[in-house]
Amino acid sequence: MTGASGALAARYRAVRTATEALAAPLSAEDQTVQSMPDVSPTKWHRAHTAWFFETFLLEPSCSGYQVFHPAFGHLFNSYYELVGSQYPRPRRGVVSRPGIAEIAAYRRHVDAGMAELLAGCVGAGQAALVELGVQHEQQHQELLLMDIKHVLSCNPMRPAYAPVSGTSAPAVEHAAATWLEHPGGMIEIGHRATAGIGNGAEGFCFDNELPRHATFLAPFALASRPVTCGDWLEFIGDGGYRRPELWLSEGWAAVRSGDWGSPLYWIGAGAGWDVFTLAGARAVDPAEPVCHVSYFEADAFARWAGARLPTEAEWEVAAVAEAIAEPVPAVSAVPGANVPGAGLDAVVPALHPRPVAGRAPLMGDVWQWTQSAYSPYPGYRPAEGAVGEYNGKFMVNQYVLRGGCCVTPIGHARIPYRNFFPASARWPFAGVRLAADR
Amino acid sequence: MTGASGALAARYRAVRTATEALAAPLSAEDQTVQSMPDVSPTKWHRAHTAWFFETFLLEPSCSGYQVFHPAFGHLFNSYYELVGSQYPRPRRGVVSRPGIAEIAAYRRHVDAGMAELLAGCVGAGQAALVELGVQHEQQHQELLLMDIKHVLSCNPMRPAYAPVSGTSAPAVEHAAATWLEHPGGMIEIGHRATAGIGNGAEGFCFDNELPRHATFLAPFALASRPVTCGDWLEFIGDGGYRRPELWLSEGWAAVRSGDWGSPLYWIGAGAGWDVFTLAGARAVDPAEPVCHVSYFEADAFARWAGARLPTEAEWEVAAVAEAIAEPVPAVSAVPGANVPGAGLDAVVPALHPRPVAGRAPLMGDVWQWTQSAYSPYPGYRPAEGAVGEYNGKFMVNQYVLRGGCCVTPIGHARIPYRNFFPASARWPFAGVRLAADR
Amino acid sequence: MTGASGALAARYRAVRTATEALAAPLSAEDQTVQSMPDVSPTKWHRAHTAWFFETFLLEPSCSGYQVFHPAFGHLFNSYYELVGSQYPRPRRGVVSRPGIAEIAAYRRHVDAGMAELLAGCVGAGQAALVELGVQHEQQHQELLLMDIKHVLSCNPMRPAYAPVSGTSAPAVEHAAATWLEHPGGMIEIGHRATAGIGNGAEGFCFDNELPRHATFLAPFALASRPVTCGDWLEFIGDGGYRRPELWLSEGWAAVRSGDWGSPLYWIGAGAGWDVFTLAGARAVDPAEPVCHVSYFEADAFARWAGARLPTEAEWEVAAVAEAIAEPVPAVSAVPGANVPGAGLDAVVPALHPRPVAGRAPLMGDVWQWTQSAYSPYPGYRPAEGAVGEYNGKFMVNQYVLRGGCCVTPIGHARIPYRNFFPASARWPFAGVRLAADR
Amino acid sequence: MTGASGALAARYRAVRTATEALAAPLSAEDQTVQSMPDVSPTKWHRAHTAWFFETFLLEPSCSGYQVFHPAFGHLFNSYYELVGSQYPRPRRGVVSRPGIAEIAAYRRHVDAGMAELLAGCVGAGQAALVELGVQHEQQHQELLLMDIKHVLSCNPMRPAYAPVSGTSAPAVEHAAATWLEHPGGMIEIGHRATAGIGNGAEGFCFDNELPRHATFLAPFALASRPVTCGDWLEFIGDGGYRRPELWLSEGWAAVRSGDWGSPLYWIGAGAGWDVFTLAGARAVDPAEPVCHVSYFEADAFARWAGARLPTEAEWEVAAVAEAIAEPVPAVSAVPGANVPGAGLDAVVPALHPRPVAGRAPLMGDVWQWTQSAYSPYPGYRPAEGAVGEYNGKFMVNQYVLRGGCCVTPIGHARIPYRNFFPASARWPFAGVRLAADR
Repeated sequence: MTGASGALAARYRAVRTATEALAAPLSAEDQTVQSMPDVSPTKWHRAHTAWFFETFLLEPSCSGYQVFHPAFGHLFNSYYELVGSQYPRPRRGVVSRPGIAEIAAYRRHVDAGMAELLAGCVGAGQAALVELGVQHEQQHQELLLMDIKHVLSCNPMRPAYAPVSGTSAPAVEHAAATWLEHPGGMIEIGHRATAGIGNGAEGFCFDNELPRHATFLAPFALASRPVTCGDWLEFIGDGGYRRPELWLSEGWAAVRSGDWGSPLYWIGAGAGWDVFTLAGARAVDPAEPVCHVSYFEADAFARWAGARLPTEAEWEVAAVAEAIAEPVPAVSAVPGANVPGAGLDAVVPALHPRPVAGRAPLMGDVWQWTQSAYSPYPGYRPAEGAVGEYNGKFMVNQYVLRGGCCVTPIGHARIPYRNFFPASARWPFAGVRLAADR
Repeated sequence: MTGASGALAARYRAVRTATEALAAPLSAEDQTVQSMPDVSPTKWHRAHTAWFFETFLLEPSCSGYQVFHPAFGHLFNSYYELVGSQYPRPRRGVVSRPGIAEIAAYRRHVDAGMAELLAGCVGAGQAALVELGVQHEQQHQELLLMDIKHVLSCNPMRPAYAPVSGTSAPAVEHAAATWLEHPGGMIEIGHRATAGIGNGAEGFCFDNELPRHATFLAPFALASRPVTCGDWLEFIGDGGYRRPELWLSEGWAAVRSGDWGSPLYWIGAGAGWDVFTLAGARAVDPAEPVCHVSYFEADAFARWAGARLPTEAEWEVAAVAEAIAEPVPAVSAVPGANVPGAGLDAVVPALHPRPVAGRAPLMGDVWQWTQSAYSPYPGYRPAEGAVGEYNGKFMVNQYVLRGGCCVTPIGHARIPYRNFFPASARWPFAGVRLAADR
Repeated sequence: MTGASGALAARYRAVRTATEALAAPLSAEDQTVQSMPDVSPTKWHRAHTAWFFETFLLEPSCSGYQVFHPAFGHLFNSYYELVGSQYPRPRRGVVSRPGIAEIAAYRRHVDAGMAELLAGCVGAGQAALVELGVQHEQQHQELLLMDIKHVLSCNPMRPAYAPVSGTSAPAVEHAAATWLEHPGGMIEIGHRATAGIGNGAEGFCFDNELPRHATFLAPFALASRPVTCGDWLEFIGDGGYRRPELWLSEGWAAVRSGDWGSPLYWIGAGAGWDVFTLAGARAVDPAEPVCHVSYFEADAFARWAGARLPTEAEWEVAAVAEAIAEPVPAVSAVPGANVPGAGLDAVVPALHPRPVAGRAPLMGDVWQWTQSAYSPYPGYRPAEGAVGEYNGKFMVNQYVLRGGCCVTPIGHARIPYRNFFPASARWPFAGVRLAADR
Repeated sequence: MTGASGALAARYRAVRTATEALAAPLSAEDQTVQSMPDVSPTKWHRAHTAWFFETFLLEPSCSGYQVFHPAFGHLFNSYYELVGSQYPRPRRGVVSRPGIAEIAAYRRHVDAGMAELLAGCVGAGQAALVELGVQHEQQHQELLLMDIKHVLSCNPMRPAYAPVSGTSAPAVEHAAATWLEHPGGMIEIGHRATAGIGNGAEGFCFDNELPRHATFLAPFALASRPVTCGDWLEFIGDGGYRRPELWLSEGWAAVRSGDWGSPLYWIGAGAGWDVFTLAGARAVDPAEPVCHVSYFEADAFARWAGARLPTEAEWEVAAVAEAIAEPVPAVSAVPGANVPGAGLDAVVPALHPRPVAGRAPLMGDVWQWTQSAYSPYPGYRPAEGAVGEYNGKFMVNQYVLRGGCCVTPIGHARIPYRNFFPASARWPFAGVRLAADR
C-alpha cells in the first residue's frame, strides 16, 4: 500500500465511521421513518452509501466480490438509471427490512471489500471514485441530519436527536449588518481542476464546479453577516408573510397553501417564538442566523430589506477574497454553544447555527440562497459513465446555495461548492446573505 | 376477587398476552411502518389497545392511577372525539417515538393498573367495559395481522411474517359448489342481549348487533362453500377484469384506476399465479377460498356467475340454522395447513385460508361480503358515553361482512357479528359466498 | 296512427319542447359551462337526451335513419358501455362544439326521425323505450336546472336563471312539526308493474322500483312537514356544524374539508343569511323547507333533533297511506310564490321550495333523504340490453331520496320513485323529513 | 391632438380591432371554454385587455369616467395584487356571464373612454401606459391563439379555428443544419432604453429587458435553422422518449407521468404522424420547425444531438449580428403556406410554423427555448406602481424563450424580448435552436 492509498483508506474508514456515529443516537424505529417524500430514512442513507461503493467500485473492480444481497441494488439505488431500476423514493419509509442490524452487516461487508481493494493497487480512476464515494457519503451525512430533524419535528413530543453537551453559549448582542464592497469586473469562478470530477493537485471537486471560467460582474456589496433571527422577527412584525407585494408570485402561492408565517421549525407566535432544534425545542435567539427558510422567503426578505440575493459568482469571488484576506475567521460564530454530544463534535461543527457577533465569514453555519438558478457552467461536461448522473440531470428548477452549514461534515465544505435545492425547500439548513447593487 | 372477576382478569391477561405474541416475530422496524393511510403500525396497535383501558377504565375509575405519559392520549386516541384530539391517522407511521420498548413498558404499566382494578370490586358497568376492551383488543389483533401483511407486501423481497410450522396440507380436490336452500319467511336477526353493549347471560355483543328484530325474507339459497381460487381463475380467464358489463360503475372505475387484474396479493399472471401470504409467497392453491377481494370484485364475480351476494339477514339465519344442525363442522377446512408458528396457533386459527373440500361452514376462514350496506338495525341506540362512538358513526358507505376469518382471534367470531369495510377495501381477509333467489 | 301511439307522440313532443323551454333563458355561454365534474353543461343535456332516442330507437329500428353526426355517439354517450366509448365526463365543459345551434339542429333531426317512427306501427317494446326516453329526458330536465344553478352560483355576480314572475307569496308563520304515527307490520313496497321496465296498465316505472315485495316494519312516525330553514337556523345556532358528536365520521370529515357551515347556496352568516336561488339571491325564509343539504347534514340534523331519517319503506308506505286519505294536499305549499317565468310554469312546479304551513304532503318541494342505501330490491333484475345499465350499476355508495321536488317536471314524480345520490351531494334539491321509532 | 398622440390613438385602435378580428371566427361557446388552468377563455382575454386600460388609465386619469361594471375589476384582474382581488384563475371557465355581447359592449365603452383620453393632452407617463396596454394586448392576442388551439384540441372532432385561405406551400426539401460561429467575448445585451419601461427614442421595451448590461461569452455556435419535424422524427425513431439518460430528472418524470411520446398536438405514431393545427389536423411536414415542445424535450433533444441550448445572451448577440448583416431574411420561411383567413393575415404572420429551407433567421416562426432561467438582469428595477407586477414577480422556475413565433402579432416581436414559460409548458409555439461550445 502506497502512502497515497493508505491515506485514502484511512479517509475512507474515518468517513464511514462518522456515518455510524451520526446514526448511533437513533433507535431502529427512528431510522425507519420517512416523514415526507423528500426525506429518506436514516437506515436508507446508511445502506445507500454502502451501495454506492458496492456498485461503482466493488462490483466492477473486484472479481471475487460477492454482492451482499441481490435485492439491494434495486432497494438502495437512488436515481442512477444506467445501473438499474429504483424502488420508488416516496415509498422508502414502508420498507422495514433490511433492518438496522442487517444494514450494519451490509456496511461491514462493503467495508471489508473496500479494505481489500484499497490494500491493492489503486488506479487513478478508482481513487477518484473512492474519493467521490467518500464525498457522497459526507453529503448523505448532512442529509441524514436534515432528514431526521424533519422526522422528529413531526412528533408532537418534539424529541431531541441528541442533547447538547457543551456549556451554554454566552449571550451575543444583536448588531446591525454593514456592507462589504466589491468592485466587480472580469473575474473567474469554478474549481481549478482541469477535467472530469477533479481530484488531482487542486483537490476534489464535483463535476458541476467545472470548468473554471471567466464572467463579468458589476460592482456590488455583500452584507457583513447572515440575516439573523432578530432581523427575521422584524420582517414578521412588519407583516412580511402577509404582504403579497413582497413575494414572487409562486412564493406567495406557497405562503398561502402552506400557511407559512415563520421559518420552518419555529413554534408559537409573537413574542414567544420557540424553535425546534436537533437538541429539542427552545426559545429563538435573535443573534442566530435565521435558518430553514425557502428561496421564496429569502427573496421576499431581501425585497423587504431593499436589497437582493447575491449571484453565485458574486458570492464566490467575495468568499475567495475573504479567505485570502482573513484565513482564520475570528469572531464569527460564538464557540461553546450547540456543541453536539460525544463523538458528534468530530463529525460536524454544530447541530444548530451559532449566534454571530460582528462580521461573520461567508463560509458559515447556514447555506446561503443565491439568486442563481442551478445551470451548467459554460463548457460543462458530465463525468463519464453512470456517475455522470450525479449532478447534471438536476440542473433545472433549482437554485444554488453556497457556504456550507453547521451540519456539513467538517472538511467537506469548500468555496466553489454548489449546493442546490428547489425554491420551496425549507428543510435544508438554509439562510440568507443580502447583496446590493453599487 | 370473585370467580367472575377472576375469570375476567384471566381473560384480560390471556388476550393481552396474545397481542404481544402476535408482535413478537416483528422487528422494531417492522412495527413502525404504515404502508397506507388505512394501515396502522404494529406498535400503534399495541399502544392504542393499552390506551383504551387507560382512558375508559383506569383514568375514570382508579383515583390513584398515574397516566403513563401525558402525550399518549393524543398519540393513541384513534377516533374518540369526546375524549380529546387525535394525531392524524395517515401520519401514524412518521412517529418513531415511543419505540417498542417504551410501548411494552406502557402496556405493563396499564396491565398493573388493570390487575389492581380487577382484583377489587368490579361493578357491572366496569366489567362490561373490560369485556369491551378485551373484544376491542382482539379486533386489533386481527387488524395487526391484516396491516403487517400489507406492510410486508410492499417490500420487493416479500418477507414472511412467520414461517409455517405445520406439515404441508394434503392436496384437496377442487369440487363444485352446490346450493343450500332456505325457505325465507319472517325471521329474527341480531344478538339476543337486551340492552346497550350486551354482556349478560346472552354473552357479549357490540351495540351494532342490537336490537334483535324481525324481518321478512323471500326464499333463497346459499352456496355450500366459499368461492375458491379455482373459481376465481375461471373468472379471470373469462375476462372478468376486462368486461365493464360485469361491474358496478364505481367498481369499474376502481378496476381501471387501480389496474386490478386479480385479487390483492396475487403475483404474476396466467398459469403461474403466486400469492403473497403471511408465510411468504407461494403458488395459488385452487382449493383455497379466494381472499383479499373488494366488494366490487365480489359483486362482479357474483354477476358473472349468475348469482348475487347474500344479505346479512340471509347469511345470519342460514348460519344459525347450520349451527343448530351441525354444531361441529367436520370437513370444511383441511387441518394441518398454514398453522402459524409457535405460540401463534393459540391465538388465531391460521395465517392463510385453508383449502376446502365439500361443504364448508359459514363461519370460516374468510369474511364474506354481503350486499347489505352497514346501517343501524331498527331501534338501534349507540352505547352511552364516548364508547358510543365505537360503531354508530361509521354507518355510511360501508358494507357488512360476516363469518370471521383465519386471522380472527380464536373465540372472537360470532354469528351475529357485523364486520364492515368500504366497498373498495382489499386488505381484509375477505372472500365471497354466493346467494341466489328462489 | 293509433290513439295510443298518437298519445305517445304527443307526449314525446311535449317533453321535448319542455327541454327547449328550460334552456331558452340561457345564453350559449351559460349552456357551455361545467362547474364541477358532477355537473353537465346545458347543451350536453340537450344533446344527450337526443342521443338517447337516436341510439336506442332510431338506429336499431329505422333502416333509413341517417345518424346526424358520427362523432356524437362518443360525445354524448353518458355511461352506456355496451353501445360504445364515452368522452370523459369531467371534461364535458371543454368541448365547445357542437354549439347550441348545431345541437338544436340535432334535436330537430332526431325529432323528425321520431315523428316518422311514431307515425308508423309502434311495437310494445318500442313504445316502452319511447316512454323510457321521455322519462329519461324529464330526469335530465331536473338535472339541467340543478346543474345550471350550480354553474350560476360560481359567478360572483350571482346572476339569475330566470326572474320570478308571480306575485310575492304571503308570509307564512313557522309552525312546529308534529308526528304522524304508523303502525308498521307486514307491508309491500315497489311498483305494481310485473316485469322489466314497467309500462302497462300500472303505468311506467324504472326497473329499480321492481319487483314489488313484502317487508316488515316496526311501528314508526314521520314528521308532519319537512325540516324548514327556521329549524335549520336553530341547528346552526346550537353549533350543529361544530359538534363532531352529531356527525357520522365521514360526514365530519366532509364538514372540515369543505368548511361547511350552512346548506349549500346559503350566503353570509348569523342573522343575515341569504340564499342563492334560480331567481337570484334573497333572504332565507324560515318557513321554506331547507334544501341543498347532503345526507351527512340530514343525518346530523336528525341526531341533533333526537330523531332519525326514515327508511325508504317507511316513507313509501306512509306516502301511499297519505295519498289514499288525502288525494289533494290542500295546505302544503303556499301558491303564488316562486312561480317560474313565462313558459317554465308549465314544466316545473316552482324554481325554489315554497314555504309550508301546517302539515305538508310527502310528495313535495324537496327530495327527502332516507337512511336506505340504494340497493336492489329482492329479486331485482336489470332490464335487458344496454338500457339495463340505466340503474343497476349505480347500486353502491348511494342513498335513496324520495318525494320529488319543485324542479321535478310536472307529472314525473311518483310515490315508488327511487332517486339516489352519494351521501356528500349537496347540489340536488334535497331536504329532510324526520322519522322516529315507536 | 398632436401628431404623436394621434399616432398613438391610431395604434391603439388598430391593436384593439385586431383582437376582435382574432375572436371573430369563434362562437360564444368557443370563447367560454377553459381547457386547463393555464388557458384562459377567449372572452376573458377580450375583457381583461379592456380592464387593463380601464384600471391603469381611465380610472386614475379621467375624472368623468364611469366604470362599466363594478364586478369586472374582480373578474378580469389577472394577478395585480395592488389593485384588488382576483377571481381564481383555474375557475375562469365557469363564469358564463358576462357573455360575448356584454364583453363587446365593455370593450366599446373602454374604447370610447380611451378615445376621449387620447384626444386630450396625453402626458409622457400616460403615453407610456397606453403603449404598455397596447403591447399587453398584443401579448394576449398571441395567448388567445395559443389557448384556443388547446381548447379545440380537446375536442375529438378536432375542429379548425380558421381554414387556411392561401394556396398550398411548395414542398421544401429537408436540408441539414450547419453551424454559425460566434467569437464570444465582452458583449452587451438588453434594451437600449434608459429607464423604467422604455418608451422613448429607443422604442418600447418591457422592464425585464433592462438595464442593458455587459456580460462575457466564450466562443460558441448556433445552428443555421431551428430543429425541424424531420429532425424530431429521427429523435423519436432513436428512442428519444424512452431513454432516461437523455433527460433531466424532472423531465423524465414528466415524460412518464404525461405519457409523452411526441410533441404536443402530434397525433398517431410511426410513419403516420399527423399534427393538429389551428387549421385542423394534417400530416406532419418534415421541413417545418418542430413546435409545441417543452424545455425538457428541447433539452433532451439537444443532448441526443450532442449539442446544447443557447443562453439568452448568446441568442441575443447572434440575432443582433444577423440583423445587422442581413436586414431582410430571404429564404427562411416559405411564403404562401398557412396564411390565415381573411383579416387574420394582417394580425399575425401565420397560424402554423412554415417550412424552412436553408438558413433561417433567429427571429422566426417558433419561440426558441434558451437554457437561461428567467432572472432579473443585473441592476433590474421593476416599474413603479401596480404595473411593476407585470414581469418581476414571475422570475423563478421559468425559462427564457427568444425569437417570436408565427402567431406573435406583426410588429410585436423584437430581438431583446424575453418571453418565459415553465419548463413543462408545451402549449406555447415553442421550438428549438441548437447551440454548441467552441
